[in-house]
Amino acid sequence: MQTTKIKKTTTSKKQSDMPLYSKRSPARKKATSEKGKPVKIAFLGGLNEIGKNMTLIEYDDDIIIIDCGLAFPDSDMLGVDLVIPDFTYVERNADKLKGVLITHGHEDHIGGLAFLLKTVKVPVYATKLSIGLIEGKLKEHKILEDAKLNVIKPGQKFKLGKFEIEAIHVNHSIPDSVSYAIKCDAGTILHTGDFKIDTTPIDGEVIDLSRFAELGKEGVLCMLSDSTNAEREGYSASESKVGDSFGNLFSKAGKRRLIIATFASNIHRIQQIIDVAHKTGRKVALSGRSIEYVVKISTELGYLNIPEGLLIGIEKINNYNDDQLVIITTGSQGEPMSALTRMAMSEHRKVDIGANDYVIISATPIPGNEKTVSKVINELIKLGAEVIYEKMHEVHVSGHAYQEELKLMMALVKPKYFIPIHGEQKHLRKHAALAELIGIPSENIVIADIGSQVEFLGDSMRVSTGIPAGRVFVDGYGVGDVGSIVLRDRKLLSQDGIIVISFVIDSVSREIISPPEITSRGFVYVRESEQLFSAASEQALHIAQRVLDNDSYDLNAVRTRVRDDIAKFMYEKTKRSPMVLPVILEV
Amino acid sequence: MQTTKIKKTTTSKKQSDMPLYSKRSPARKKATSEKGKPVKIAFLGGLNEIGKNMTLIEYDDDIIIIDCGLAFPDSDMLGVDLVIPDFTYVERNADKLKGVLITHGHEDHIGGLAFLLKTVKVPVYATKLSIGLIEGKLKEHKILEDAKLNVIKPGQKFKLGKFEIEAIHVNHSIPDSVSYAIKCDAGTILHTGDFKIDTTPIDGEVIDLSRFAELGKEGVLCMLSDSTNAEREGYSASESKVGDSFGNLFSKAGKRRLIIATFASNIHRIQQIIDVAHKTGRKVALSGRSIEYVVKISTELGYLNIPEGLLIGIEKINNYNDDQLVIITTGSQGEPMSALTRMAMSEHRKVDIGANDYVIISATPIPGNEKTVSKVINELIKLGAEVIYEKMHEVHVSGHAYQEELKLMMALVKPKYFIPIHGEQKHLRKHAALAELIGIPSENIVIADIGSQVEFLGDSMRVSTGIPAGRVFVDGYGVGDVGSIVLRDRKLLSQDGIIVISFVIDSVSREIISPPEITSRGFVYVRESEQLFSAASEQALHIAQRVLDNDSYDLNAVRTRVRDDIAKFMYEKTKRSPMVLPVILEV
Repeated sequence: MQTTKIKKTTTSKKQSDMPLYSKRSPARKKATSEKGKPVKIAFLGGLNEIGKNMTLIEYDDDIIIIDCGLAFPDSDMLGVDLVIPDFTYVERNADKLKGVLITHGHEDHIGGLAFLLKTVKVPVYATKLSIGLIEGKLKEHKILEDAKLNVIKPGQKFKLGKFEIEAIHVNHSIPDSVSYAIKCDAGTILHTGDFKIDTTPIDGEVIDLSRFAELGKEGVLCMLSDSTNAEREGYSASESKVGDSFGNLFSKAGKRRLIIATFASNIHRIQQIIDVAHKTGRKVALSGRSIEYVVKISTELGYLNIPEGLLIGIEKINNYNDDQLVIITTGSQGEPMSALTRMAMSEHRKVDIGANDYVIISATPIPGNEKTVSKVINELIKLGAEVIYEKMHEVHVSGHAYQEELKLMMALVKPKYFIPIHGEQKHLRKHAALAELIGIPSENIVIADIGSQVEFLGDSMRVSTGIPAGRVFVDGYGVGDVGSIVLRDRKLLSQDGIIVISFVIDSVSREIISPPEITSRGFVYVRESEQLFSAASEQALHIAQRVLDNDSYDLNAVRTRVRDDIAKFMYEKTKRSPMVLPVILEV
Repeated sequence: MQTTKIKKTTTSKKQSDMPLYSKRSPARKKATSEKGKPVKIAFLGGLNEIGKNMTLIEYDDDIIIIDCGLAFPDSDMLGVDLVIPDFTYVERNADKLKGVLITHGHEDHIGGLAFLLKTVKVPVYATKLSIGLIEGKLKEHKILEDAKLNVIKPGQKFKLGKFEIEAIHVNHSIPDSVSYAIKCDAGTILHTGDFKIDTTPIDGEVIDLSRFAELGKEGVLCMLSDSTNAEREGYSASESKVGDSFGNLFSKAGKRRLIIATFASNIHRIQQIIDVAHKTGRKVALSGRSIEYVVKISTELGYLNIPEGLLIGIEKINNYNDDQLVIITTGSQGEPMSALTRMAMSEHRKVDIGANDYVIISATPIPGNEKTVSKVINELIKLGAEVIYEKMHEVHVSGHAYQEELKLMMALVKPKYFIPIHGEQKHLRKHAALAELIGIPSENIVIADIGSQVEFLGDSMRVSTGIPAGRVFVDGYGVGDVGSIVLRDRKLLSQDGIIVISFVIDSVSREIISPPEITSRGFVYVRESEQLFSAASEQALHIAQRVLDNDSYDLNAVRTRVRDDIAKFMYEKTKRSPMVLPVILEV
């Protein structure tokens, strides 16, 4: 496999003479006309990271976008609400955009769409459920009116500019997920989206393997495939396994109330809970804004089948006995504001947890959430509940293909080139290694990165970098106004707080007329540190006076010296490094 | 099992008349004299948490302490370096302290000792290696001279006040680990410390099961046992398994350089690496301060056996070919400043990672460290290294007993009462459930908490709470000066930064003589927000002027109004909540 090595193209021009991204330079036109035009794949997200998936496919003057997701902030992105892709390249090429294809309705595939549509006008194509979920998001952002949303069906083919698009049904942890085969004169690109192979899915619709096999026969130039579980051996278990477990656990719960936490978007999971509840004579109540919304939409659109009268409002649960109830709730990842966390912390308005509760966490912690999930479990147990959370009970299965499924998909599609997507470096590498096992030559496998562009022309491939790509932080209303400096300051502030040293200087007499006042936040208990502060104040006065005496009237010099010297003083006294902010007011 | 229920004692006095912690009230003396004196076990750490293990055993006027550990801060303890137990109860009873018994040399058992010894004078008893490691810590704190450190041997019995102590050899992930049997007239308490049952340990010393069995026959009143792995079924694997894996992996590494990350204190692991290195003709270099220190100490004390000339300085690695080298390094948890992380980030001064490196992470991530470990792995892979990190390669085994071992220990010791220790609520509960399986009556099992005291007198047990216990934060030189207010401020600062609004007011004319100056840190890019700041400044001036006009000259009122109104203003404009700090200077 290759990473950023540039393969020689068949043109006689030297590479340095042929900038890839110049707008139709004559040299380029000539070069490409010999072998037709190249198709280019660029990545704005989803490589070397989990989340904010976004891929661009470009042919001639047409660009289509596949997915536009968000990522949740890492712990070092302090105060950041969401992370979205950098749309610079899309903005620059706004006139070429033919459409956004959505593979499925998860946040890491649709969560950036509202921000994209505020930037460029482009029609969106997605299956019915995905469109339903997108509509909710665009409504929140108040841009639903302006959006062009198009419902497509798995199996449907349609044209977008010079591309012919085909959506292919796949299994995943949300219904209505599709892969896309994208044809142009340069060849067919297959983007799997997120997928697994489930031969006993809840909706009865097995992934359309025969279509993948046909495409393989027709010839696929390049396949991009989901690497999330490339490290896991064997096959993923079927979603219907979870239903069997629920059956057993419902009878184990006996006379107790059942509370089941799961991902709001896992509609098949919710369907299975509803089915078992119905069979066992329990009513179902929902807790959590997102789960209420998803259940509403997917019932309306026909993805959830809820027997009449089964669903009750959460405010009605006191009208029923514990053994007549199942509460389905959000918070399977221990999210601080989620319904399950509020139950665990005894802060939920409608649900008091006690010894008669049987809680099932129908999910596994996403890496990074292990501790928060553990905390919720511990608190629920302290309140007396029994909590089912281990893998052994099979209360959760993954929605992403394991190694054998990934290999099967490659074996069916037989792509000439292969690019693993949706994963960190370790996932991409493992997936690439699987591709080699299947017989894809190592030189036809590309480990790309965001900002990479892979170009196919005739028999050759070349990889370049330099597409603007990165993380754009959303914080409150601000999109992109929090960057490395702001984050660095937040990090510093979070560690040892801040000390503000304020003076007043008479701009005429050049004298300090109010002695330095020191205020701190997040540094030490102020009451126990009066001595420290008065010593620092004296020192600051001394430093400032000396600068004013020696130098010309340079307030910046005063600021810098006070900041540096007081920082040093505080470190010596406390071995801490608070941010020091001198404020000088002139009168 | 019971949690905080109070069992009636055999005394005729009502409980409310008999405060547990009053100093020798006459009533109490009379009550206890009928059945002898009670033995009491109090917990200052290690229950409902991982780390800072500390247990007190009290009989008559004597107290002994078992372990004094530290915990690493959770992600919400911003800027905190370490967490240690609250020593209030120990300080109050300083005259009763007879000694500190150390079970083994891990940080969560010895890391609080230096802070304890600065608070109270008390002799320390530990096995040779533990004493060696403690000495290093006390030296750093410059209190080694004053400390009374006593080396004991497994199997040795000694008296401390009215207690007879016996140390019993156990297996764990650091050599020289012991359990303690603590006898007094009220009965025998057995504290297992951390342990596992390893029938093929590296040093050949199998846990002293026969002594545990004998104690079981002699009669144990109460056993406190390590719950860390109470959720894991079966038996833990032997440390020697890892040696076999190393053998295989060394040959897989072929001509490449080997880099192995492990816990510095896992001396048996290091011994196994050294053995395989010696066999395969590779030199060993160390990288990381803690691993260098531990190797030095344990070699001096005879716990590590390093063939002459095998160890080379890290600065000498360039004198050898890659296939002649093994580098043992710290950083198996992805710690930001560790040697392995620096290698991964290309910031290590001596080691450049490349395609000829074969890296083994001989550890599993401690919950909470998954993401940092993943990041290090991804970066190493990007640099071209092959990284071995999955469980499947058996490059790590746990040092804590699994369910079958825990049950075996209980079956041997047959304690009358059982208290699971060292674990979160979920671990303690699982361990308690195992004890019930073994036949310990549920009413004789106590799920305690820090601050609990369990008292045994004759045939009865009672549990009370109220021993001062909690988390004391160490930040720089400060011990306990960072509390909830400071942490809350750090949290706020970390999310949206701070805005400082400074004015000068003429205290005579009561007029604002310098318009509000606004400075911010960690809030927004200042350059892009000039308009926002000037609007805020105007607003602040307006608010302050109005308060001064309407009210009496109340600067606190000005501060409060400016703070609240500007916070509201900023939230409306940005949907962020920076801390607002008004500074008013009077001249």
